[in-house]
Parts: sequence; structure tokens; C-alpha cells
Amino acid sequence: MDYSDVLTAAHRIDGHVLHTPVLEVSPGVFYKLELLQHSGSFKVRGAFNRMLSAGELPPSGVIAASGGNHGLAVAYAARALGVRAEIFVPEVTSPVKVAGLAALGADITQTGAIYSDAAEAAAKRAAETGALVVHAYDQAEVVAGQGTTGLEIVEQTGGVDTVVVAVGGGGLAAGITLGTSGGASRRSPGAASGGGPGRSPGVAAEPGAVARPRIVAVEPERIPTLHEALRAGKPVPVEVGGVAADALGATKLGAIPFGILSSPRVRSVLVSDEAILQARRTLWARHRVAAEPAGATAYAALLSGAYTPAPGERVAVVLCGSNTDPATLTT
Amino acid sequence: MDYSDVLTAAHRIDGHVLHTPVLEVSPGVFYKLELLQHSGSFKVRGAFNRMLSAGELPPSGVIAASGGNHGLAVAYAARALGVRAEIFVPEVTSPVKVAGLAALGADITQTGAIYSDAAEAAAKRAAETGALVVHAYDQAEVVAGQGTTGLEIVEQTGGVDTVVVAVGGGGLAAGITLGTSGGASRRSPGAASGGGPGRSPGVAAEPGAVARPRIVAVEPERIPTLHEALRAGKPVPVEVGGVAADALGATKLGAIPFGILSSPRVRSVLVSDEAILQARRTLWARHRVAAEPAGATAYAALLSGAYTPAPGERVAVVLCGSNTDPATLTT
Repeated sequence: MDYSDVLTAAHRIDGHVLHTPVLEVSPGVFYKLELLQHSGSFKVRGAFNRMLSAGELPPSGVIAASGGNHGLAVAYAARALGVRAEIFVPEVTSPVKVAGLAALGADITQTGAIYSDAAEAAAKRAAETGALVVHAYDQAEVVAGQGTTGLEIVEQTGGVDTVVVAVGGGGLAAGITLGTSGGASRRSPGAASGGGPGRSPGVAAEPGAVARPRIVAVEPERIPTLHEALRAGKPVPVEVGGVAADALGATKLGAIPFGILSSPRVRSVLVSDEAILQARRTLWARHRVAAEPAGATAYAALLSGAYTPAPGERVAVVLCGSNTDPATLTT
Repeated sequence: MDYSDVLTAAHRIDGHVLHTPVLEVSPGVFYKLELLQHSGSFKVRGAFNRMLSAGELPPSGVIAASGGNHGLAVAYAARALGVRAEIFVPEVTSPVKVAGLAALGADITQTGAIYSDAAEAAAKRAAETGALVVHAYDQAEVVAGQGTTGLEIVEQTGGVDTVVVAVGGGGLAAGITLGTSGGASRRSPGAASGGGPGRSPGVAAEPGAVARPRIVAVEPERIPTLHEALRAGKPVPVEVGGVAADALGATKLGAIPFGILSSPRVRSVLVSDEAILQARRTLWARHRVAAEPAGATAYAALLSGAYTPAPGERVAVVLCGSNTDPATLTT
């Protein structure tokens, strides 16, 4: 997979998804407001790309397992394309997400404790029905679709040094890594400056080269799928828990995302559940942005100091999900 | 007052306020997300313009009366500029707004039933202290500051046929009327098409002219300050009540706004409280945008059919305030 897959995806899903706006909160610091996306998260990008790539869809429609957001996206896309959606979610999925699935007309099965349990049940069911499987993160079309978020970031900001993004199964972070690798930015601070403090090896630094942004991949301490995969040299199972488990709760990183994220451009950082909740409260209080815990996880890395940009570093923070009970935003 | 006052304001307040993003929710329909502005509403634009126009500020600082949002904006701007802020609010002001004022370090006096009572008390107090009065809507610098929202709409959308905006005292609607009168749009559908269905007289329609957008000025039925002013030929007092009274609850339209809004470009429409609440719920459910009732009032005109755009009409809807208890977004 490479940049061209993301470009192809962007053309394919154009008109089906929103170009979500960016908010420049201070000079050079951008929030990518992907939580304003249809279905409340970035997941519709990959869902549409997978479904529109498949040609004619089977009579049994599409099937997906999900912590919730991916299911909402598949149900949204299925409704838009006029096909049936069967969605498997685990018990950890929040009531808001289950209600949202029902409102979109999906057939819902809630089974197992965490995402991987639901995924197992969905795979078995798919073998029976012949429905098209839309994976939550470990399919090329899904990763390419999520990567269109990265294309927009480059276009809307004019280029950044760093993209900060949350990781669960790794689809969004991997997609953005590809989608920001095209050198389409108008600015290339790395090329101009010869590399700022802390610039990773592998990011172009020779004069005339176009800098591709660093990817800061943020995970809850309680679900360190990428962190452990990078240590082990391959995706390995981790314990799943904490406040973002219904959205970042993959048991291990996807194989396709791992291939992309095991790159010198990518830096893995961990944040505590408390930092995630604090980030969520702050996004609401300071900016009136309503995020679910997973949607605030990238911002938690900045707010807690887990990642500190250098002076003048241009940073895009991806706020990626808002499927939450708004009554909990201030608690 | 004219377009140049708004341009001057934009230069003056640059860096103090956010360029809030627009979200294109369907082709040619834009939400101006002014509710992501500092202090949770557009009001900081006018507050900064008034305070930065005044030269050195008096030792007693600034003083304002407000239903809440203007007070929050003045308190925010005062803190940013390092001066004292004294804010008078009526009993109708929501607890969220009073708490926000306290958090910004303002001196708060809560007095009287509605805005006009608080305004009277503030005027008396200002005469004693010599603080700079920052009016909620009836000052040229305030109207010009709010108008910078209109400049951004033109720039960010490439031009629209219509701007839909809520009216209380009239500052925002009047400012936007001026701020969209510069002919800076790249598109001019009125000029190209000779005017669409329902195009108001006064909007340029001859070939080669640059169209200025129609302004659809939306008010709650229970606070029809502009509607009654246009009928009477001058601002007249109205009853104040309903769900948006803490933000649109002026007793009568400002004299400066009236001079600008009594224009053939402006169309006055009314919406019910139920339509406002429905718009607020829909903005959250469909777009994850958290608005207070006043902030959803412009959208209510579209959702309820009080204003129906022609096919192909390009429309910007100003969502202007989010100072609300998020627990109430789904009720």
C-alpha cells in the first residue's frame, strides 16, 4: 500500500463523506474536527471505500464487528447505499452507540466482553451468510479510506511537522501515515530548516526534499497495541481496559497497520485514562468540542506533556470520535 | 458605518479571536461554526474591537450588561488584555454562563429579570466608576467586530447567496450585513443567473454586478425585536420570553443595527421555541455540534421551513453560541 491508494480512495468516497474542517486554535496548532464526520467518527471513510471497492454487494449485505464507531459507520454507509448491515458489538459498547446502531436500522448482535469476541462471532456469521466483511482496521481499503483524513490535513493546514493521532487497531494512524506521505504540502519546514529538535530519522531533511510529517501515535496505557507491537517486532495480544475501551479496544494491532506504522516516521506514546478524561473535559470547556474518550486521546498527549512540540512546530491533532452521552462531558 | 469599518475591525482583532471553520454539510450548505469561538460565541469579536479601539483603558477597566454571552466575551477579552471586567447579568442568565463568568475572574452582579434591567444598572454603575462601557450590540465598534464573521464566511465559502443568522439586539446580523457587502466573493450566482427565485430587490442582479448575499434574520416568535421594528419603522419594545431569552433577549433592536438591517437585502423570519429546540437536538444528533438555543435559532429557520432555499441556492447558516449545559442537548 502507498500514497496512491489513499488518493484513489479519496476520489471513490468523494461526496459520501464530509471534508471535516480544521480549527487553528493557536498559530500552527490545528484540530482536525473529524468528530463532526457522518456517524460521529472517521470510520465512514474506510467503510465507504471498502463497500464502493467491492462492486455489486451481496444480497446479504455487509457485516462488521466493532466496538461501536465502526459499526455506526458501516450501518450509515449501508443505509446510504441501500444494503443491509449486520453489526456485532461486545458488551463494552456504550448504550449511546447501541442506540445509534438501532436508529440506523442495523441488525445488531451484542456478544462477548470485548471487540475480539464480537469479531469472532461476526466472522462465523459471515461465513454462513456470504455478506461482505468490512473490517474495523485490518483491510487495505479500510486503511486507505481512513487515510483520506491525512490528505485533508495537508491541504487544509498547508502542511504540518507533526500529526498526533490515536491508535486502537491502527487503521486511522496507518492511513494518515500514508495519506501524509505525498509531499503535497506547500510548506516543508524540515527541508527549510534541516530538521527541528527531535526530528525523527527517516523524515526528509536534506535541502530540497519535501518533509513528510512525523506521526505521533497515542494509545491509552491500558490498551498499548502499537507500543507492544513495536517492542515485540510484530502485533501481539494485550490486555484491553479503561475509559476508551469501546473505541480503541482492539486486542492487537492489525497486520496491515503494523506494516505501515513500524516506520521511523512514527513515534509511539502512551497516556493515562486520567489524562484522557482531562483532555475531554478541556476540549469541551475551552473549545466546545464534544469528544468521546477515544476522540480526545490524541489531545491528551499534548495536554499531559506525553508529547511536547518544539517551539514553532506545526501540529495537527486528530479529534476522531464524538459518539458519547453529552451529559458526561463535564464530569 | 460601512464595509471598511469591518475590514478595519478584522485587522485590529486579528490574533485575538479564532477564524472559526465552516462545515459544508451538503453541496452549497455551510455551517459557520462560530460557536467554537473563544468564550463560546461570536461576542468576543465585538468586545475586542471595542476595547482595542479605545486606546488606553481606564483603571476601572471595562463594564458590560449582558444576557451572558456578551459578558463572557468581555470578561475573556479583559483577561486577555489584563484589565478588570465588571459584568451585569439578569436573573434569566443560565447558571452555566454565571459560572463561566466567575471562572474568567469577572466581578458579577446579577440583577433584574431580563437584559434591559441589568443594562440599566450597569449604566448607572459605569457613570460612577468611569469604566469603559462595552455595549452588547448598539455600538459601532461592536457591530463592526461582529461583522468580521461575515468576512470569513465570504472567504471560506467562496461566496453564498444567503446568510441565515439569529437576531437579538441585532449586532451580529447587522455586522454580517456590512461584512458581506464588499463584493469579495469569487462566485456571484446572482450576476450569473440574473437572480434566483425569490431574490430580494436590492440584491445586485444586473449582469456583471457582484451579488451581495441576502440576509435571513431569524428571531424567536417570543422576542421579535427586528420583526416589530421593521413593521413600526423604528425599534420598539417587545415582550421577552422563551427558550433563547438569555441570549436573544433584548427588549428592542439597537438603533445602529436598525439602520443597517432596514435594508431590502434583509428578510425577517420568525421561528417557534419548539423549532429552536428541535434544531438544537438535530444539530447534536446529526452533526455533533453543541449549540445553545440561540445558537441553533438560525438553523431552526431552515429545519422548520420558515426559510426554504431555492434549488442550488448557496446558504451559510451562522451557529453562534454554545454556552450551554451539554446534558440538555438530547432533551
